[in-house]
Amino acid sequence: MEKSRAERLIANAKGIDAVVILNDGSPFVDSTFWYLTELTGGSFEGSIAVVGKDGSLDVMVSVLEEETASAGKGEVHVYHTRDERDNFIKEALKGTSKVGFNFHCASYSMVDYVKKTVKGIKVTDASSAISMTTSIKDSREIELTREACRISSQAAKEIPDMLSEGMTEKEMAFRIDVRMRELGGTGNAFDTISAFGANSSKPHHAPTDYLLRKGDTALFDFGTKYGEYCSDMTRTVFLSRPPEILERAYEIVLQAQTAGVEKYMDGAPAKDADIAAREIIDGSEFKGKFIHSFGHGIGMDVHQDISVSPRSEQILKEGNIVSAEPGIYIPGVGGIRIEDTCLITKNGCERLTDFDRRITFV
Amino acid sequence: MEKSRAERLIANAKGIDAVVILNDGSPFVDSTFWYLTELTGGSFEGSIAVVGKDGSLDVMVSVLEEETASAGKGEVHVYHTRDERDNFIKEALKGTSKVGFNFHCASYSMVDYVKKTVKGIKVTDASSAISMTTSIKDSREIELTREACRISSQAAKEIPDMLSEGMTEKEMAFRIDVRMRELGGTGNAFDTISAFGANSSKPHHAPTDYLLRKGDTALFDFGTKYGEYCSDMTRTVFLSRPPEILERAYEIVLQAQTAGVEKYMDGAPAKDADIAAREIIDGSEFKGKFIHSFGHGIGMDVHQDISVSPRSEQILKEGNIVSAEPGIYIPGVGGIRIEDTCLITKNGCERLTDFDRRITFV
Repeated sequence: MEKSRAERLIANAKGIDAVVILNDGSPFVDSTFWYLTELTGGSFEGSIAVVGKDGSLDVMVSVLEEETASAGKGEVHVYHTRDERDNFIKEALKGTSKVGFNFHCASYSMVDYVKKTVKGIKVTDASSAISMTTSIKDSREIELTREACRISSQAAKEIPDMLSEGMTEKEMAFRIDVRMRELGGTGNAFDTISAFGANSSKPHHAPTDYLLRKGDTALFDFGTKYGEYCSDMTRTVFLSRPPEILERAYEIVLQAQTAGVEKYMDGAPAKDADIAAREIIDGSEFKGKFIHSFGHGIGMDVHQDISVSPRSEQILKEGNIVSAEPGIYIPGVGGIRIEDTCLITKNGCERLTDFDRRITFV
Repeated sequence: MEKSRAERLIANAKGIDAVVILNDGSPFVDSTFWYLTELTGGSFEGSIAVVGKDGSLDVMVSVLEEETASAGKGEVHVYHTRDERDNFIKEALKGTSKVGFNFHCASYSMVDYVKKTVKGIKVTDASSAISMTTSIKDSREIELTREACRISSQAAKEIPDMLSEGMTEKEMAFRIDVRMRELGGTGNAFDTISAFGANSSKPHHAPTDYLLRKGDTALFDFGTKYGEYCSDMTRTVFLSRPPEILERAYEIVLQAQTAGVEKYMDGAPAKDADIAAREIIDGSEFKGKFIHSFGHGIGMDVHQDISVSPRSEQILKEGNIVSAEPGIYIPGVGGIRIEDTCLITKNGCERLTDFDRRITFV
């Protein structure tokens, strides 16, 4: 029989007696809770999941979530008071010594609460074991991500038709968001970046009322959720002909993306893709203008598990889903980024997103 | 001169030398970072803000956020490497002894990082001081919340016209979300709850493909963001006449909401509103069916700072913004909830949301 997600997680957590997943108030909730329970939706503030040494899964939820939780995996324990939750967590961790937590995805107060409630446990970081588990997607997760990517790709293809002179960044963000929902997306994977002209030189620009004009870059970084899973892509186009330097930058980014994606395969060091792309940009007139990492893991959170940077020590595995997103940013002039969501396969990778990556003048 | 937000925060943090606000990877970022810097948007993963004893504000951001951060409050320090960030945080905390953190809104790993990087500091919880500061809205924050409430109220008023037999919960959630964006909202404050028939008995139900039919309850809990600030409201209507028990429940919830809202005023214990509403529900045939708190604080996060529950020990203050949301939930039959966003004033409160709260049969 195939192992459960909880069983796979505890098998990856060498020397750890139990793994505790903690939700504080929203947004400080851990997507690993949904991963393990296989629930979709629900708020689950204050809920806790405990994976035991034997791969068991205990899920503690308030009475508010009782009905919703009952549809998921794990043995559900419903608490009405703080005392009841205290007792459930003590019981679940009875006899354990070394207990793992998701240090990056748990609030300080929740870890502190468990430490104080359950005497004598040794608190340790289980985030590597968790990432090792959640970063390898099963077939259902891949299908959901594929659908999220299909939806955002369709929106990406329609961008040149949506765009016209005098539109605001906010208006375009709105149109893309609505289109993704119309196409079946369940909500944004993150706040859409819509950046025109010089604003596109800010990698994390928030949409403004700036009016698109001829010669402007128009950069869109967006993604949808589908069944909790995220897509993530960036398309950059031009309204009419931009300053020549940006056309040259576009071609370099495109080459860099291709070179990076070629390094994506099972068994390859994650940093190889970053290095390959960065060599191309740093070997051009745009040296030093690629100011972020080449990629990151994608799952229920849009940034998770994997870092594709020059310093990454991770090895890519079949079933990983990662972004490929080199960029060139010229302050005061504009920025170019091209991004796909990619599935790592045995011998390479599959781009799950799809749009015309050739230079486009609207 | 009016005190800055940083100055007000440190004044509330008695006996604390500095307050550190920490962002880990999204969604583990602290809205207090945006509150202090007065920035809108941006990702700011890994960014740190430090409020000094003198009310100074140091903001450490990666080179990715340099341009965006420069538009905000505080002295911006741009780091290119982890080492540079280490040095900035050491410098900012030089000579401090007792350092406050937002225990509920910081990841365990980020607090641990500062603890290990800056030797000799005493880590303490500053979340009460932070809540005390952020829960009292200034005039700009009230105006932004008022606009968010105006947008969602307009969508609420249109719900009876949007609704028809055979629609799915997902479709209605989509329509409400799009309408809020069309009306000027910048994105959902949280995932819209759209629950028909027996599904409405689950307070945190996630929308499904269930088809609306005659006699069903239709419960919608939704809100928008506007300039980073949230609205939060719930409207419950019926498609034609529902089981009589639900009509009776509706009238009780309406009475309970009115009774609770009457307790909202500057200087009143927060729990009084919950107690007043709960007395009405528990004094009816629906005893025990109001299974959550009467309300919560609202700001840049949809749940923050204030708890309006029977156990709350907080005192309401002029400038607080809180929800008022009693409900009755009958498993297998349906649920009723009525919710407004309310601004606490000197002598009472102002409902910032607005819709017809009388029983409505579509």
